[in-house]
Amino acid sequence: MKVPFNPVEMIRSKRDGHAHSAQEIGNFIEQFGAGAVADYQMSAWLMAVFARGMSDRETVALTDAMLHSGQVLRLPSVKPIKVDKHSTGGVGDKISICLAPLVAACGVAVPMFSGRGLGHTGGTLDKLEAIPGYRVQLPAKRFERIVREVGVSMIGQSAELAPADRRMYALRDVTATVECIPLIVASILSKKLAEGIDGLVLDVKVGQGAFMKDAKSARALAQALVRVGTAAGKRVVALLTAMDCPIGRTIGNGLETREAIEILQNAGPADTRELTLTLGAEMLLLGKAERSLPNARIRLERALADGSAFDRFLRMVEAHGGDPRAVERPERLVKAKAKIEVHAPRSGYVSDCAAYPLGLSAVALGAGRLRADQAVDASAGIELCAQRGDRVARGQPLAIIHAHTRSLALGEVARVRAAFSLGAKKPRPRPIVLERIAR
Amino acid sequence: MKVPFNPVEMIRSKRDGHAHSAQEIGNFIEQFGAGAVADYQMSAWLMAVFARGMSDRETVALTDAMLHSGQVLRLPSVKPIKVDKHSTGGVGDKISICLAPLVAACGVAVPMFSGRGLGHTGGTLDKLEAIPGYRVQLPAKRFERIVREVGVSMIGQSAELAPADRRMYALRDVTATVECIPLIVASILSKKLAEGIDGLVLDVKVGQGAFMKDAKSARALAQALVRVGTAAGKRVVALLTAMDCPIGRTIGNGLETREAIEILQNAGPADTRELTLTLGAEMLLLGKAERSLPNARIRLERALADGSAFDRFLRMVEAHGGDPRAVERPERLVKAKAKIEVHAPRSGYVSDCAAYPLGLSAVALGAGRLRADQAVDASAGIELCAQRGDRVARGQPLAIIHAHTRSLALGEVARVRAAFSLGAKKPRPRPIVLERIAR
Repeated sequence: MKVPFNPVEMIRSKRDGHAHSAQEIGNFIEQFGAGAVADYQMSAWLMAVFARGMSDRETVALTDAMLHSGQVLRLPSVKPIKVDKHSTGGVGDKISICLAPLVAACGVAVPMFSGRGLGHTGGTLDKLEAIPGYRVQLPAKRFERIVREVGVSMIGQSAELAPADRRMYALRDVTATVECIPLIVASILSKKLAEGIDGLVLDVKVGQGAFMKDAKSARALAQALVRVGTAAGKRVVALLTAMDCPIGRTIGNGLETREAIEILQNAGPADTRELTLTLGAEMLLLGKAERSLPNARIRLERALADGSAFDRFLRMVEAHGGDPRAVERPERLVKAKAKIEVHAPRSGYVSDCAAYPLGLSAVALGAGRLRADQAVDASAGIELCAQRGDRVARGQPLAIIHAHTRSLALGEVARVRAAFSLGAKKPRPRPIVLERIAR
Repeated sequence: MKVPFNPVEMIRSKRDGHAHSAQEIGNFIEQFGAGAVADYQMSAWLMAVFARGMSDRETVALTDAMLHSGQVLRLPSVKPIKVDKHSTGGVGDKISICLAPLVAACGVAVPMFSGRGLGHTGGTLDKLEAIPGYRVQLPAKRFERIVREVGVSMIGQSAELAPADRRMYALRDVTATVECIPLIVASILSKKLAEGIDGLVLDVKVGQGAFMKDAKSARALAQALVRVGTAAGKRVVALLTAMDCPIGRTIGNGLETREAIEILQNAGPADTRELTLTLGAEMLLLGKAERSLPNARIRLERALADGSAFDRFLRMVEAHGGDPRAVERPERLVKAKAKIEVHAPRSGYVSDCAAYPLGLSAVALGAGRLRADQAVDASAGIELCAQRGDRVARGQPLAIIHAHTRSLALGEVARVRAAFSLGAKKPRPRPIVLERIAR
């Protein structure tokens, strides 16, 4: 039975704090897609949701409605359990690029859709495109074949995927309704569930460089993601991870892809490796490739050590039309015309390396974008020569700025230098993974 | 100094419960007029205001900004104090038509803009147009001349008047943001203050036939109107008046205009006369024509008795191109082709005569409209043969339905009959004026 459809009654009901039925939410999103709910009605409803909240049951219904506003993949020919990871976004977060092929090398299929960078955080698609020839847009059939044959494919979200989310997000962005947990949950899950996955690991970032600045709000988001994702029938785990300092030693597309390849070559910075292994172990568990986190971790380390993870990445890049030489010799990905070193103004221990201003500097250098229609420069970015806890002598390089021109690079020297705090004492190490949230 | 303009920050600020400055509100409404604030942003802001409220100071600023979004009359050539009345809308509310010329006849100028009916309540413009030839759209100069020469002019709100209110109201109507006191106050006052008045009497209706169903919310609206209107520099008084039963004995444009003329001819139903005198006395006080309500009432009664009020109405109608014969012989206004009597199913006292279903019946008969683009039938409506407290015998007429066709009239018999409740005991009389609210 169809509920008679009246968008004004729908808005009024939420405005007055009532709960919607799944059918009402389904109708509302369907009619929004059909043009029978105007943008000004959707934005009033979004603000009412912001003010009054939604229950998990409503959020499941919203996720489902947004998911079914477009194409939903099933990947029937892919036999292993399909698992993906989603990060809420951080500075220097190149984890997907090494994580997806590593997990695939351990027997769990990873069908991954990614987005582009916006604001101070980067996007996996921009990083993949630093590899010459890599095609991020492929037909669904080809995507399925690559997942089946290689075990992993990383592509861009197509326009057919959860189109309601795209339109709703665009409205939220210009009506101050972004920071609302049920809306964030439905937006993230509707896109990820359209991939046809069975399990999802969520990396919810916390800190000054993240969308969620404090542990309380990040935990609330992570808990809601796990509850709603589980209620939607998926196996879901979330980790709260630190985003005060950038992940690893690079910010910027080519630089970050190089670092991800180093991880796959069993090298690279310790924190990038640690986060990759931690998230990967959760994915192997969800994918039933291993039955305990310690065993899963051993298996992942072996796949890094024996070259099978790297090999998997190489095969995926080739399947996407990418140049294998750029993967085998990743220093080719780093080719900025201008490089400027930023020196320590005095000796000391790096007590902070602030992700947020470094993210803004990377955008200013051309590595990211502030508006969705801007292009990015794959070679631009920041290489960190010291991370938090490292000791530097006065005049030693803290970072190297990579840019298309010397003047662009020079323009960011002050901001990059100011992002580093130097202290007399070695700071206490801080954990990367703060909390694990599961049902 | 101009505050940098960012509509998203404006929405965010209200969403988070902060107060806007007058300058911020001024910019926001100005930019809405200029197209720099999109409808979906305005509707999100309206919902945020609904959820978080606005202070009187903000409401004064909003009223002022909406008022100055269009033409503001000054009427410099009109010497007496200019006073108007506004009703929040009821069934059978023809008071403006007899009140305005009556007050003018007592020496207070009444420059009155009116609206059309929408939903179950009627509008003064539709009633005036029942008079053949009466022009409701006149240039501002001609309006000013009529007010100067006749002391009263009643016209329609022009498109130049508070255009921001018209656009905002249209959005509120389709985004469930109508029932919000600061927004209602700014909408009412911005339109009324554009008339160039010095004082305003507000008739805030309470009851099942009114916008405000209970005394508490009506009182809150009336108090806000008085506080904000006073803060905007006007002399403002509000009366809470009953709207459970229709006012007087007629519903429908021609019928109501006839009843208003009967009042001006010192006849007509007691309740219509009582409300006219009560509101008129307040207007004479605000207009400084009298110093006490009892004296003002005596003066009004004299103007009804000596024909000067009726004469004033006749002159106004002539100045607007209306046919004076229709005023002198108001039975000419009643000319429906089909009339059907609705009979009492049994004997008893009328214990209720429900305004809301009668208002809906009048709309269904063609006297009103559910959408702004519908036309009305001036001859359609309902004549009440019995009011609350009257005794009727079985088979006696309760009402006469006036319509263009017999089948239209027959279609409303059941609803009109059901609007009357009959009891064995004479019901206790209820007051018309429930409360007076002034500074």
